[in-house]
Amino acid sequence: MSMICLDDFEAYTECFLPSAVWDFYAGGADDCESRDRNLLAFKRIRLRPRVLRDVSAVDMRTTIQGTEISFPVGIAPTGISSMACPDGEVCIAKAADAMKTCYIASTYATCSLEDIVAVSSGCCWFQLYVFKRREVTERLVQRVKSLGYKALVVTVDVPYIGKRRKDMLNDFKIPAHLKLKNFEIFKKDKDRNDNLPLCNDVLDPAVTWSDIQWLRSLTDLPIILKGILTKEDAELAVRHGVQGIIVSNHGGRQLDGVSATIEVLPEIVEAVRSCVEVYVDGGIRRGTDVLKALALGAKCVFIGRPVIWGLTYKENKCLEYSLSTLQMIGKFYG
Amino acid sequence: MSMICLDDFEAYTECFLPSAVWDFYAGGADDCESRDRNLLAFKRIRLRPRVLRDVSAVDMRTTIQGTEISFPVGIAPTGISSMACPDGEVCIAKAADAMKTCYIASTYATCSLEDIVAVSSGCCWFQLYVFKRREVTERLVQRVKSLGYKALVVTVDVPYIGKRRKDMLNDFKIPAHLKLKNFEIFKKDKDRNDNLPLCNDVLDPAVTWSDIQWLRSLTDLPIILKGILTKEDAELAVRHGVQGIIVSNHGGRQLDGVSATIEVLPEIVEAVRSCVEVYVDGGIRRGTDVLKALALGAKCVFIGRPVIWGLTYKENKCLEYSLSTLQMIGKFYG
Amino acid sequence: MSMICLDDFEAYTECFLPSAVWDFYAGGADDCESRDRNLLAFKRIRLRPRVLRDVSAVDMRTTIQGTEISFPVGIAPTGISSMACPDGEVCIAKAADAMKTCYIASTYATCSLEDIVAVSSGCCWFQLYVFKRREVTERLVQRVKSLGYKALVVTVDVPYIGKRRKDMLNDFKIPAHLKLKNFEIFKKDKDRNDNLPLCNDVLDPAVTWSDIQWLRSLTDLPIILKGILTKEDAELAVRHGVQGIIVSNHGGRQLDGVSATIEVLPEIVEAVRSCVEVYVDGGIRRGTDVLKALALGAKCVFIGRPVIWGLTYKENKCLEYSLSTLQMIGKFYG
Amino acid sequence: MSMICLDDFEAYTECFLPSAVWDFYAGGADDCESRDRNLLAFKRIRLRPRVLRDVSAVDMRTTIQGTEISFPVGIAPTGISSMACPDGEVCIAKAADAMKTCYIASTYATCSLEDIVAVSSGCCWFQLYVFKRREVTERLVQRVKSLGYKALVVTVDVPYIGKRRKDMLNDFKIPAHLKLKNFEIFKKDKDRNDNLPLCNDVLDPAVTWSDIQWLRSLTDLPIILKGILTKEDAELAVRHGVQGIIVSNHGGRQLDGVSATIEVLPEIVEAVRSCVEVYVDGGIRRGTDVLKALALGAKCVFIGRPVIWGLTYKENKCLEYSLSTLQMIGKFYG
Repeated sequence: MSMICLDDFEAYTECFLPSAVWDFYAGGADDCESRDRNLLAFKRIRLRPRVLRDVSAVDMRTTIQGTEISFPVGIAPTGISSMACPDGEVCIAKAADAMKTCYIASTYATCSLEDIVAVSSGCCWFQLYVFKRREVTERLVQRVKSLGYKALVVTVDVPYIGKRRKDMLNDFKIPAHLKLKNFEIFKKDKDRNDNLPLCNDVLDPAVTWSDIQWLRSLTDLPIILKGILTKEDAELAVRHGVQGIIVSNHGGRQLDGVSATIEVLPEIVEAVRSCVEVYVDGGIRRGTDVLKALALGAKCVFIGRPVIWGLTYKENKCLEYSLSTLQMIGKFYG
Repeated sequence: MSMICLDDFEAYTECFLPSAVWDFYAGGADDCESRDRNLLAFKRIRLRPRVLRDVSAVDMRTTIQGTEISFPVGIAPTGISSMACPDGEVCIAKAADAMKTCYIASTYATCSLEDIVAVSSGCCWFQLYVFKRREVTERLVQRVKSLGYKALVVTVDVPYIGKRRKDMLNDFKIPAHLKLKNFEIFKKDKDRNDNLPLCNDVLDPAVTWSDIQWLRSLTDLPIILKGILTKEDAELAVRHGVQGIIVSNHGGRQLDGVSATIEVLPEIVEAVRSCVEVYVDGGIRRGTDVLKALALGAKCVFIGRPVIWGLTYKENKCLEYSLSTLQMIGKFYG
Repeated sequence: MSMICLDDFEAYTECFLPSAVWDFYAGGADDCESRDRNLLAFKRIRLRPRVLRDVSAVDMRTTIQGTEISFPVGIAPTGISSMACPDGEVCIAKAADAMKTCYIASTYATCSLEDIVAVSSGCCWFQLYVFKRREVTERLVQRVKSLGYKALVVTVDVPYIGKRRKDMLNDFKIPAHLKLKNFEIFKKDKDRNDNLPLCNDVLDPAVTWSDIQWLRSLTDLPIILKGILTKEDAELAVRHGVQGIIVSNHGGRQLDGVSATIEVLPEIVEAVRSCVEVYVDGGIRRGTDVLKALALGAKCVFIGRPVIWGLTYKENKCLEYSLSTLQMIGKFYG
Repeated sequence: MSMICLDDFEAYTECFLPSAVWDFYAGGADDCESRDRNLLAFKRIRLRPRVLRDVSAVDMRTTIQGTEISFPVGIAPTGISSMACPDGEVCIAKAADAMKTCYIASTYATCSLEDIVAVSSGCCWFQLYVFKRREVTERLVQRVKSLGYKALVVTVDVPYIGKRRKDMLNDFKIPAHLKLKNFEIFKKDKDRNDNLPLCNDVLDPAVTWSDIQWLRSLTDLPIILKGILTKEDAELAVRHGVQGIIVSNHGGRQLDGVSATIEVLPEIVEAVRSCVEVYVDGGIRRGTDVLKALALGAKCVFIGRPVIWGLTYKENKCLEYSLSTLQMIGKFYG
């Protein structure tokens, strides 16, 4: 099997992983309209190439939140990554570090946030949910800062978990040999540790903008909101003093029927008027997709599922191969 | 077979029912363009989700014609429902009652309107055709009011019956063991009772707006017109003193080549300027479809075929399961 | 095999006829884009149905060129119709007469224009090509008038014959047992009679508007131009004193890449400002297609291939069945 | 196998050639979006045919860069043409000469530019890349002029070679029995002669507009830029004194995600305001495509892959058949 483009890694992953695991990673909510639209929307954007420019030296470096990364592609948070290879999130962190780019570790990691940051010398961010039990959120924020994470990415598009039909059909559960490591510390939660955090019982649908102010009071890390899809909310984000926005529809895993992220990026970029950095994720599969996102105002893009595919490919060599995935993306962008 | 979404109930029904019965329920007129467009049109409407709102408590209650229902999804009239399970319409009425929503019983029911209303403590409406023999219509109206139905839904899009090719091919007839119960009372019609009422011979293509005034003179129940698709007719409806409009293309079973109902809803909502309540049916399959309809100005939506699917699913437990169908819709809407 | 709609007759014909004959009737030029677009364009037009109108009595009669026909669907000229059933054009003429509508007999008929008009008591028109040998055209015009044809339909979209790939592949020739009867009279042409008239050698690509004036000098019959697709040519047609226009792309058999006829109908109707009657052919398969054409300004439509299908169906009873085809169209229009 | 249209030659070629060779000729970059869009875009353009014009005599002659050609279809440069038949480029040149049209010989020809021009009495142009080793480019320019080529076509859309996935998968290499003849003269490059010139190591990504001025200083031949896709670059081309522009996306083989060439032709024609001749290539398969390009302002079109198909068809008679391909195109244009 020759690995020429990301589609090849995706096809490999679909063959290699148990189908319920593949379904979990690949799935979208309801009819998967938004998941699929993310990809299609890029194809409708046309490049207008200029010629006879000196492109012999291409410098892909950029900065996000003041930190330099080697190219404008970071790694989006993906939960339960160790189903793709052992110590999944640690492997991803190593790859990101080697490639000198940013990794956003998920709250729902199967490696602890301590282990993840330990292999990272560079730009590691932490993705956070606000739980009904606010002390869980609060202690996560405190650990995150002291461990050296550089920013807090607050997911705002999960008041309720999206109805991923395949997961319901498969009765998907976290495999028994894996733990959601970031919750081990909460002793009294021990019995309900593994699967419950994925339930609606745990996430707080009552979160509002005032909770952003509460998070601000807990930390001086940059706060980045992930899941903004309208200019109105982008303006509110600026007004509430956040440092960044990730235009995201959660890979089409949450509310179905929303626009592709690349479609709403321009209205959000215009609304924030350079007050904060705007990033985007969803459907980025080629260097030209990155280029389109940057041309429309994104400072950097994030990729999620492709990194899982890289992890899966010859999982016993997962570090090497997740590196190769990232290199490939860099190459396509060149 | 796992039942995750309405599509699953539809697939079950297609397998379970005799094909001619399935064809009758599923069929549209001519090339089924409008039937299929009803579904596709919802996919073209994009949600613009706002985040960081407190959605911990969602109150789905609304009122229609002054009566409270527990969520804005009522049950559209479907003829000959007992082909899906015994005593079909009575089962539907029980389910609607349990869910505290509205059921519009069809003139062409296979249960009598007396039996239907007997199991309903809440919001039951009656769907009416105007027949060539006006005394049939007149006596139906009189029975309806005395039995406790809360509104009269007059279907206005059947001057002639749509050419449903599958029914013609199957030579579809009402099964011998079923009766159109609402016509049993008309002794002298006994011999022609069962199949004739479905024919063009019986329905009056000469009905005009003045007949709406005649119906008004017969009853003080709210009159709701079902089958309006243009702003011009919506304005006429307001001017003729009706209490509500159901934007409907009869599930694509009548004139083919018309727009999806969700496409014309906005022009009708604008035309009536809140003078009357506007409802819509056609192609609603997910909670987000309900949301889109409400966002475009509908006070409530009605669903037809999905209820038949719920009836069909394990028909020996039809009440239980049609309830479960409704609950599922409620859940998707949440 | 049940015959419910015209598609059924088409499917029957495709099965029943020798494939080269089917290809000849069904074929379009080049990639068949315009042939297929004719059909698709109707589906993009939406009806806006008004309700509560008295439609108990529908009068479909209209007049074309001052002659009353029973419904606004005439029969377009189709060449070599006897491949579908013996004495094809005579059968069509009988059917048209029985249905009290108009038949445009083709120059390339396999029955003589004398035989065709003999079975017609009503509205028969004659379709004419202008040949390089103008005396052939001239004598046809003279015969046409004296035989009682009511109008001359001059085809203007065949400067060269369209490249129908299937016919080239099949090396299509008129079957040996058939004759192009309208050319039998030209004794000196006897040897080259049958196939040559279909060749580019015979039709004159030098025909211009001044030839329309020449035709006008030959006859006082109404002259109708068939094959106009632009408002500019429609205006020229009015200025040159013709009596009617058939908006046509020759069923997609001539220049490929042009618009569907129903798409350009409005600009032509507007350009002629009621000075002449405008008709349309191409892709009309349902009563609602007729309705759309009339709503967009056509006085009458013409159908071609569906009549061939009617002829083919049980060809040993061809008169009866071509009648039934026409009745079916009438029914669909109702 | 009957050869009726270019699609037939394409199908033949796909069957006849080794799959890796077919893939090389047919392939596009990345997802092949732009390659396929080139074809689809023509189908979206509608012809508005005028009728009753005298088209008995059609004169297809035109001039390009002051030289008369017999019809407005030239032959685009295609590399390594001898995989389709022996002495591929010489055969093409003979065909072009016989048809009295223009052939643009590729730098990457498998026949020497001396041999190519030797069989051409008419209009031969030379396609040029700018190499990192500028003396290679310089000596090519000098040979070209002295040999009698009439223009220099500078390709400007290959700063890096497009990622043609099929070639990567096939590990495509120039067959061992073929040489890139135009490089044989460079003794010291002998060892790296055959495959290296196709690599990014050889082409110079630092080429800018000032290199156009350098080329101008080397020759007084007309300079034509191939690969312009924006009005901005078209204006720059005029300002830098070139004599022509070929609107091209390299058959979709370079940057994927750009528009079809026929889509951007109008903006370029308008931008140059007749200062230079504008040509177009990409997706031209029928005479009506040529017509559309000319109607949108092109002075002439160029075709590439279809000529390869003509060469492939019965390759032992390649001259005869590549002639027949060209004649066919001429015929379709008529």
